[in-house]
Amino acid sequence: MADDTYVGSRTPRLEDARLLAGRGRYVGNVRLPGMAYAVVVRSPIAHGRLVACGVKAARAADGVLDVITPADAAGIRLPCAGLSPGQRLTAYPVLEETIRYVGQPVAVVVADTPEAAGDAAELVDLDFDQWPAVVGVARALADDASLLYPEWGTNVVTDFPMGDDCEEAIGAAEHVVEMTFTLGRVSPYPMEPRGVVASYDGEELTIRISTQAAHNVREHAANALGLGHDRVRVIGADVGGGFGAKEHLYPDELLACLAAMRLGRPVSWTEAPGDRLVATLPSRATVHRGRLALDGDGRFVAVHADIVSDLGAHPSNVGAGPAAVTATLLPGPYRFEQAGARVRGVVTTTTPTGSYRGFGQPEAAWTRERLVDEAARRLGLDPVELRLRNMLRPEDLPCGNRIWQTYDSGDYPRALRTLREMVTPPGGDDGRRRGVGYSCHVEGTGMGPSMGLKAAGIQEGGYEAALLRMNSDGSVVVSSGLSGIGQGIETALAQIAADRVGVPMDRIRVVLADTASTPYSPVGSIASRALAVGGPALAEAATRLHDKIIALAAHRLEAAPGDLEIVGSVVQVKGDPQASLPLREIATSAWRGWDLPDGCSPGLEERATYDPADYTYAYGAHAAAVAVDPETGEVELEGYWVVNDCGVQVNPDIVEGQLRGGVAQGIGMALTEEVGYGEDGQPVADYLPPTAYEVPEVRIVSLETPSPITPGGMKGVGEAGTISPPAAIGNAVAAALPEIADRVTDTPITPQTIWRLLSS
Amino acid sequence: MADDTYVGSRTPRLEDARLLAGRGRYVGNVRLPGMAYAVVVRSPIAHGRLVACGVKAARAADGVLDVITPADAAGIRLPCAGLSPGQRLTAYPVLEETIRYVGQPVAVVVADTPEAAGDAAELVDLDFDQWPAVVGVARALADDASLLYPEWGTNVVTDFPMGDDCEEAIGAAEHVVEMTFTLGRVSPYPMEPRGVVASYDGEELTIRISTQAAHNVREHAANALGLGHDRVRVIGADVGGGFGAKEHLYPDELLACLAAMRLGRPVSWTEAPGDRLVATLPSRATVHRGRLALDGDGRFVAVHADIVSDLGAHPSNVGAGPAAVTATLLPGPYRFEQAGARVRGVVTTTTPTGSYRGFGQPEAAWTRERLVDEAARRLGLDPVELRLRNMLRPEDLPCGNRIWQTYDSGDYPRALRTLREMVTPPGGDDGRRRGVGYSCHVEGTGMGPSMGLKAAGIQEGGYEAALLRMNSDGSVVVSSGLSGIGQGIETALAQIAADRVGVPMDRIRVVLADTASTPYSPVGSIASRALAVGGPALAEAATRLHDKIIALAAHRLEAAPGDLEIVGSVVQVKGDPQASLPLREIATSAWRGWDLPDGCSPGLEERATYDPADYTYAYGAHAAAVAVDPETGEVELEGYWVVNDCGVQVNPDIVEGQLRGGVAQGIGMALTEEVGYGEDGQPVADYLPPTAYEVPEVRIVSLETPSPITPGGMKGVGEAGTISPPAAIGNAVAAALPEIADRVTDTPITPQTIWRLLSS
Repeated sequence: MADDTYVGSRTPRLEDARLLAGRGRYVGNVRLPGMAYAVVVRSPIAHGRLVACGVKAARAADGVLDVITPADAAGIRLPCAGLSPGQRLTAYPVLEETIRYVGQPVAVVVADTPEAAGDAAELVDLDFDQWPAVVGVARALADDASLLYPEWGTNVVTDFPMGDDCEEAIGAAEHVVEMTFTLGRVSPYPMEPRGVVASYDGEELTIRISTQAAHNVREHAANALGLGHDRVRVIGADVGGGFGAKEHLYPDELLACLAAMRLGRPVSWTEAPGDRLVATLPSRATVHRGRLALDGDGRFVAVHADIVSDLGAHPSNVGAGPAAVTATLLPGPYRFEQAGARVRGVVTTTTPTGSYRGFGQPEAAWTRERLVDEAARRLGLDPVELRLRNMLRPEDLPCGNRIWQTYDSGDYPRALRTLREMVTPPGGDDGRRRGVGYSCHVEGTGMGPSMGLKAAGIQEGGYEAALLRMNSDGSVVVSSGLSGIGQGIETALAQIAADRVGVPMDRIRVVLADTASTPYSPVGSIASRALAVGGPALAEAATRLHDKIIALAAHRLEAAPGDLEIVGSVVQVKGDPQASLPLREIATSAWRGWDLPDGCSPGLEERATYDPADYTYAYGAHAAAVAVDPETGEVELEGYWVVNDCGVQVNPDIVEGQLRGGVAQGIGMALTEEVGYGEDGQPVADYLPPTAYEVPEVRIVSLETPSPITPGGMKGVGEAGTISPPAAIGNAVAAALPEIADRVTDTPITPQTIWRLLSS
Repeated sequence: MADDTYVGSRTPRLEDARLLAGRGRYVGNVRLPGMAYAVVVRSPIAHGRLVACGVKAARAADGVLDVITPADAAGIRLPCAGLSPGQRLTAYPVLEETIRYVGQPVAVVVADTPEAAGDAAELVDLDFDQWPAVVGVARALADDASLLYPEWGTNVVTDFPMGDDCEEAIGAAEHVVEMTFTLGRVSPYPMEPRGVVASYDGEELTIRISTQAAHNVREHAANALGLGHDRVRVIGADVGGGFGAKEHLYPDELLACLAAMRLGRPVSWTEAPGDRLVATLPSRATVHRGRLALDGDGRFVAVHADIVSDLGAHPSNVGAGPAAVTATLLPGPYRFEQAGARVRGVVTTTTPTGSYRGFGQPEAAWTRERLVDEAARRLGLDPVELRLRNMLRPEDLPCGNRIWQTYDSGDYPRALRTLREMVTPPGGDDGRRRGVGYSCHVEGTGMGPSMGLKAAGIQEGGYEAALLRMNSDGSVVVSSGLSGIGQGIETALAQIAADRVGVPMDRIRVVLADTASTPYSPVGSIASRALAVGGPALAEAATRLHDKIIALAAHRLEAAPGDLEIVGSVVQVKGDPQASLPLREIATSAWRGWDLPDGCSPGLEERATYDPADYTYAYGAHAAAVAVDPETGEVELEGYWVVNDCGVQVNPDIVEGQLRGGVAQGIGMALTEEVGYGEDGQPVADYLPPTAYEVPEVRIVSLETPSPITPGGMKGVGEAGTISPPAAIGNAVAAALPEIADRVTDTPITPQTIWRLLSS
């Protein structure tokens, strides 16, 4: 059997037949009769108070159906509770007069056409009292900073320690490398814009939305609008990229729901190009003071980071969660006597920051791996050798990392050694300076309950449920509350179901993310968990379904279950194809309730849940080769190599696709992308995701250490690609330019930065 | 508790808030973008062959998108397998060239607007070879009858005996009353016309349809169109009356699906007024030769009926099922030494006959109760006394009726005695002739597996499944594959769930008949089974949900489950309202998977099935008082009385509403309604359902003998009202006009009939 299983094979992706033929079911394609269009009017100022909101002209404009002002949305709030203890704010109004960022919604215009809504939005007459902007964490922490929430007396919204204090260990260490890093603010930037179509029939609110977490949207929307959860249905269909940006329910989307309820007509809202950088949550945006302490033999003693995370105008629904995750994975694959962090979240007059693929882990890798390379430089050691000297070995695992995590399995040194063999940096004598940089990381996937925040009073976790049905005609439906966000989860789930039930994959259909027809998913497609948590749930349901089919066939064929097997579309006695029953006949009989063995319930439908005992830890080692033009500061990425271990691979093509996509995003973070702000809180208009020019061929080798946690051995892979590229590229740039190595501290590493550093 | 349960109370109907405010979700209100409109072109002749179907002009007409001819629908068939053994036909084409009734679909025109489709339909140029029509069972059985299926050599499609042969017993009996009865062809005539909106996205066919059996529609449509069952979703929302007419999937509806698949656009089809009598299945349409044998003491010896059922052009998907049910309930509430029937189904060149509320039972009551009254007349006995003399007593039950049924419980004589006390016939000296008639019946409800057809190789039966979920906010959703057809099932299910879970009814929402989100229902809302079978399934799920809530609360409150109770929106320690937990908190924790006791799965969702061991038998006694004008033959119904026992009543208001509505339909069958045909097979255009003028106040007394079969004690009541009115009214007319009593044999009893009988 092992030879012809779907799991492990490079089966073409099921969803591509639909997506590549233009038959994707995106919310932007939804047209409902009587559908109206909403445009959100946004604040043009960063900080202040809306003292007048004149809507008369807008209301009177052609085609306008409704204008919603803060007064109309009083009391409607979305949660900003996150993974941080003691957070000062737990909810925020979707429309309010106090302004804290450029782009904050201040009104909504709804009209018969998008054009009419857009035109009328221009007629809304806004008048503000303006207050000083607060941009950047340094400003937020300054004594004379303007306060976003004066009642707090500070801009710090949360402040908590994690792991060891480390001061004593660092004080006593022979060598201490201390650097301050700034991780730029970047945008997840999915291809498909955010969008929603809300409709309300007086009883039920139906929300068609591009989301990673349909069941969460349902609860957040119901709570915000004062509806029973049973009155809200969320239909999440195809999602053209989420990357974390679509795990939030945004005020824009909720306001479209409110508009639909007020009007009694379906209301569509789509993210406009101008909304992308001011209204869709960016991420990273953090300053770390990092310290790495070593003994005289180059052994790591302690690592500590003082993390200040820029949460923007208010904590999003993940709050300072990414910064906490940065802390938990700060130690990476190395052995430390002490490891710890201080995590602060501060508010600034900028767009709130949220979730983005990697969720704090690229930041952790950047800080740790840059410190390691700088230590190697200062101690005159080979950076790879220094890493290997301090790395946890397979026999050390499972092993606690001193900041709440217990790594489960893997061979970290093997990954790095394999990588070193792969790297063949291009040379060249073109006046450019060249260097190779490495980064190693351990990655928490699957989101078990162990992150330790429970001890801090914060519940988290995440079981997943799967529903599996064989219809009367033998067709099979997998139903899951997860979202298909381009990651190929339809295919991976179908592979598991086909193997376990024992039917061809073309018999299987996967239904996702409709709250009316899929099992509850507590958190959706986030945190590299869809397969790592959803997979075992489905495998269990599929095994049960298989066994029930066999039991029914055994009853009817008067055979022992052990003598039967499913082959194609029949159940047959092993070795005797004549003694067989069509699956269709077994399934029909099961559903009609005919001729069932005693104690057997009607139907052929199984549901199972899987609640992971812990996170399961993937890991990787990345290398980058760069050429830097000292005249312009331009960095060209000449080569990129990845060794990754995400446990058992259900579909290596999908794994590699995930890694490549993630690496591209990591390259953007390293070199080109930044959501910039002027000191007045006005955003900079341009944003530069990497193109094919910036992304070289990514060479990938996969190791496969089965997860001891996950039945089936899978670990998550969705975020893996994003974690190490900034650090590997930063290390490569530092290696190419040793004279400024200790000042390669900030992302993105733009030509201007390099040029400035080289010139000073 | 008993005092304040919802079950048993006259709780206002939940669905009325929606239905009475015009917010019913009927398929006719569905508008989808790009929706096209189909019109079915029907045969104007009764029997023959379509030799030319010219569609050029129609195709060229303005707005026309598609024209479908029989050649385009080759191989697409719907099932006509029914509850009759040995039936000669098991499927029929949805479009074919051989014509067997006026109204048979011969082509479909699809256009941008209903008007364009209608206009173009007129342009389809049809040419036929015409053959002789076959109208009525006598003609069908005649030696020189034209044959609808010449290959059979007969128009008899099925012919089988049921129960005892009876010939010997009848031959030896002291008295034998033999009469031949004709039960007119009537239409279920729901207020909401049939309708469908089909849409196809290249992967999935979605069928919005007015149906009593959504899950059946899905399977029939998928099988007919060659789609996997997983590719078809049926959304059955509110149904404005079904009465059996909407348990079938019609060619019209399937052709709209085919059109949607061909066009790639949603296609709407709605039953036109002209379709009602030729294309929506009528029912009854049967001739009985009935014989009742008695001994010298007026004790019943045997009853037998030779039943010939007019199936129309082909068996519908219930085939000769109604005639078989007539046979099984022919003995009614009386003791017989022998009872039996011969059942034949014949084909005629008329619209196929199908299912209609009562499903053969009004026919059984008519024949039996008219024979009983005629026997009383001939023997000079009081008809009520004759009934009481022969009635099964409570202590006789359970008791087999000799035609496959085993009556479970009840007090039949009490029902009749109670009725006799109620009857107060209006007198009058206006020249009209007055009489009172009685009818008693036993009614099979709930559709257990015992009907005995299994012995004849026909599987049937009908478990029901229920899904019950408490959401994170404590709101509760009941999900069922049954249909809400106006009968109040939403309310009845909510009453059961509220009582069993222990929450107020306004916390509960009922979702029905969407195949994507409701449990599979093998047969849907038919056969007076929705509550009798669906109720116990829900009660079981609700009990389990209640127990899980209590277990979770016990875990968190560190209390014994037995000490806890649900009160309002909290779980509290009995007698100590301070020690409590909000349901919302328990539910949130359950769904998030937090803090669960060992072995407890996440979520708050239970599903249960109930598979009845047998039918459960309701019964009733009806009386009618009539005044007949001998000058005109007009029958006025001056009074109507019902004693009914459907076991435990979940909602007496709903029970009485069901009875009143059923009685009105029974009155129509008795006096006014008939789908008539000329000898040429052309239908008569007028059809007269009874109005408020024909329907007097119906006085109802309910008895309540709990069902020993159904957990909760319920029996079905949906059809009860329709069963006895024709017989009671027929007996009243016979009593008023003894000189023609033995010729009151046919329904409807029109003024013309009476006048003709009185004049001859």
